[in-house]
Amino acid sequence: MKYCSLCGSQVRIGIPPGDNRPRHICDHCNTVHYHNPKVVAGCIARWEDKVLMCRRAIEPRYGYWTVPAGFMENEETLQEAAARETQEEAEATVEVGDLFAIIDVVRARQVHMMFRTRMIGAAYDAGAENLETVLIDPDDIPWDDIAFPSVRFALEMWLEDQRRGRVGLHMTAFRAPRIQD
Amino acid sequence: MKYCSLCGSQVRIGIPPGDNRPRHICDHCNTVHYHNPKVVAGCIARWEDKVLMCRRAIEPRYGYWTVPAGFMENEETLQEAAARETQEEAEATVEVGDLFAIIDVVRARQVHMMFRTRMIGAAYDAGAENLETVLIDPDDIPWDDIAFPSVRFALEMWLEDQRRGRVGLHMTAFRAPRIQD
Repeated sequence: MKYCSLCGSQVRIGIPPGDNRPRHICDHCNTVHYHNPKVVAGCIARWEDKVLMCRRAIEPRYGYWTVPAGFMENEETLQEAAARETQEEAEATVEVGDLFAIIDVVRARQVHMMFRTRMIGAAYDAGAENLETVLIDPDDIPWDDIAFPSVRFALEMWLEDQRRGRVGLHMTAFRAPRIQD
Repeated sequence: MKYCSLCGSQVRIGIPPGDNRPRHICDHCNTVHYHNPKVVAGCIARWEDKVLMCRRAIEPRYGYWTVPAGFMENEETLQEAAARETQEEAEATVEVGDLFAIIDVVRARQVHMMFRTRMIGAAYDAGAENLETVLIDPDDIPWDDIAFPSVRFALEMWLEDQRRGRVGLHMTAFRAPRIQD
């Protein structure tokens, strides 16, 4: 941020009175601009014994595998965000179940929230941001080509819960993006 | 948003190519500005049989009762945010336990995430944004003067879990702020 989004003046970085961390401050219209983490909502979507995965057609991590997920928008709930992203990314309609993984991706300033989800019908396709979408047997998940650590964590926890016949909420934090490419 | 935060030009509202909802667009530097919900992290903090509550010294809901909570900052985890807010709001040090309530406050564009939390020592005080902080017996919670529906929901779920000797994750959504004052 270089300019105030309200009045167009240049902003400076400083610690406002009563605050304890640097913010973007507009001295012209006396506005403090706060920047906060964004929520990413996504799904492990199941159809029979397979799960829905997408291969990315955009950077970062072009060509790598992920699950349907994306930024939560204003005016929607977490579940609505997860269902919408699955529709957009994989052109699949889902019934969103319970939240099972929360991942703090600290450096990326994101909180990822992943839901257990059931596909309503077997229809799916590659959305605009993906090269392909597949229903894949868990044994065939391309572990060496997963796009993000949060996706790996979600898949691992989902599979572990399946194996143990349990449902749980799994939380973790990644301090660094941990992306090697 | 009226001006581009990157180049200072006036923005317009429009639907970018490949998108399906209105955004703030800068035609000068070709930037699309996205606005997303913010995360509020908070605690039901317990000391012996009492819980920590704060009476607000700021609007909205000046003078009404809440629990320690506030906007998650960049470069911290959800648990760190909950602990930091409890330190700032109530000057109490806590050991953050499990997440037990998630509330979509849709109109306010917020997701509230509440943790079961144990105070480390009985020290507490009113932070700068509160008139007073108290350790209160659950039977004495001022239900008629709770600041926000999400705080009421969190307290109710926490108490219900205590009564039943269970731990659970409770999710709900409030479409309207439901604040009467």
